[in-house]
Amino acid sequence: MKPKILLIGGGGHCKSVIDVIEMEGSFSIAGIIDQKELVGKKVLGYEVVGCDDDLEELFAGFTHAIITVGQIKSPDVRIKLFNRLKTIGYEIPSIISPKAYVSKHATVDEGTVVMHDALINANATVGKNCIINSKALIEHDSIVGDHCHISTGAILNGGTVVSEGTFFGSNTVSKEYAIIAEKSFIKAGSVVK
Amino acid sequence: MKPKILLIGGGGHCKSVIDVIEMEGSFSIAGIIDQKELVGKKVLGYEVVGCDDDLEELFAGFTHAIITVGQIKSPDVRIKLFNRLKTIGYEIPSIISPKAYVSKHATVDEGTVVMHDALINANATVGKNCIINSKALIEHDSIVGDHCHISTGAILNGGTVVSEGTFFGSNTVSKEYAIIAEKSFIKAGSVVK
Amino acid sequence: MKPKILLIGGGGHCKSVIDVIEMEGSFSIAGIIDQKELVGKKVLGYEVVGCDDDLEELFAGFTHAIITVGQIKSPDVRIKLFNRLKTIGYEIPSIISPKAYVSKHATVDEGTVVMHDALINANATVGKNCIINSKALIEHDSIVGDHCHISTGAILNGGTVVSEGTFFGSNTVSKEYAIIAEKSFIKAGSVVK
Repeated sequence: MKPKILLIGGGGHCKSVIDVIEMEGSFSIAGIIDQKELVGKKVLGYEVVGCDDDLEELFAGFTHAIITVGQIKSPDVRIKLFNRLKTIGYEIPSIISPKAYVSKHATVDEGTVVMHDALINANATVGKNCIINSKALIEHDSIVGDHCHISTGAILNGGTVVSEGTFFGSNTVSKEYAIIAEKSFIKAGSVVK
Repeated sequence: MKPKILLIGGGGHCKSVIDVIEMEGSFSIAGIIDQKELVGKKVLGYEVVGCDDDLEELFAGFTHAIITVGQIKSPDVRIKLFNRLKTIGYEIPSIISPKAYVSKHATVDEGTVVMHDALINANATVGKNCIINSKALIEHDSIVGDHCHISTGAILNGGTVVSEGTFFGSNTVSKEYAIIAEKSFIKAGSVVK
Repeated sequence: MKPKILLIGGGGHCKSVIDVIEMEGSFSIAGIIDQKELVGKKVLGYEVVGCDDDLEELFAGFTHAIITVGQIKSPDVRIKLFNRLKTIGYEIPSIISPKAYVSKHATVDEGTVVMHDALINANATVGKNCIINSKALIEHDSIVGDHCHISTGAILNGGTVVSEGTFFGSNTVSKEYAIIAEKSFIKAGSVVK
């Protein structure tokens, strides 16, 4: 039987992650964690089964979780949730869409979701708890730190370093070997040198 | 036997659509409709079998048609053709490239062609008679009205609304929940807020 | 037995090409040619087996080669190497990633590598010794001359002509039927008319 997984956050990004998890097929979705007043509502057919305060209790029944809150302005919510899930003891897998590609010469750490049509090329390294969003391209030798969101269609050219907690905007492109500081916010459609 | 389909318009976009139809495999191409003086010429091996004035007569032999005229400056030609085909009684299918992806939580209406490597994510809705061009990305919760052209490599981020008759340029990106008015013309390489 | 192939150039681009060759499966990698002082070092597990001066001698053992030097500022190094390999007698194949798509109505000439997720659409023509990089899109009727680098995520819209020796930057987009002069350098994130 497939392990059941809790999705932490029931907004728009959660829907895209549901699409990935359903296609990937390793987990069955146990339900969604969101704000208290949303308990009982559904997201693409999956019920909101609790709020943050219920995470300890739910660990009795479910051992896997993944963060499905989006990340634009700040990584803080996702970092806090990640640390909390780890403290409780949840396993936080990396989930890779069958429509994405991760080179066998690349690595992706726990809690990171690689969305449809994303591509992680040879010798790239992606940290924990990242979103590598739909159609993003992480070229050879790039390094993405923990808790980053590489947004839709973004391109990290070869050897780019994106430091921890960064938002790298949609359709933004970095030059080869660009270095991006921690917790940077890089808006959509930029060129980063 | 596969239903035969007429392609309405024999320009450059038609070639890309032929590539999609051949790979998709549900239809056999009956021929192309273009200007009178082009009758008898060929596009990728398919003959121009008539002009607009012949559409009523051709309906005796062929019941399916798809519009393969491109759309940049204005949607008017494609809207007029769509209405005319409907009035005559043609079935106008949606055609989705096997190299594209449409989430099972998304919908695509009749007459829309989803080209190679396009991606339509969970809970998105695409109207009638649209071109979702090669490598375009329609993210979760987006809505695309009828008669729109989402051009090559364009990105609609989550919850974007593109109203009827809009041209959304190549490699253009919208911010989440952007709202775009009817019949907008958005040039290539833009960022839309 | 698979033919063995030499990779000419052991930098970052070489790693991406190794990923393509391993997945494509037609060739086994004989080793890498790079600067003399790097002989014996390894790139993704493949040894640097010689430098440029060894190419004549190595032709006794290996008959296939592909250029894996990158191309940004100038095509001259890649052109010189290509001509030298031809003079010696090497076969220089085109290599197309199984994750790329080349329309059966398109052509790709010798020595060109089509990287993962690149798409070459109907009636396009790509010359010799080009790099069609990851996620690049070459639309219908486009023509790419010899010795060009169409960089990551770049888009040539329908009918674009890119003349010999051009660098077409990452995430750059051309308007339909744009014409780009020989040996142009077009920086990342541009819109070309």
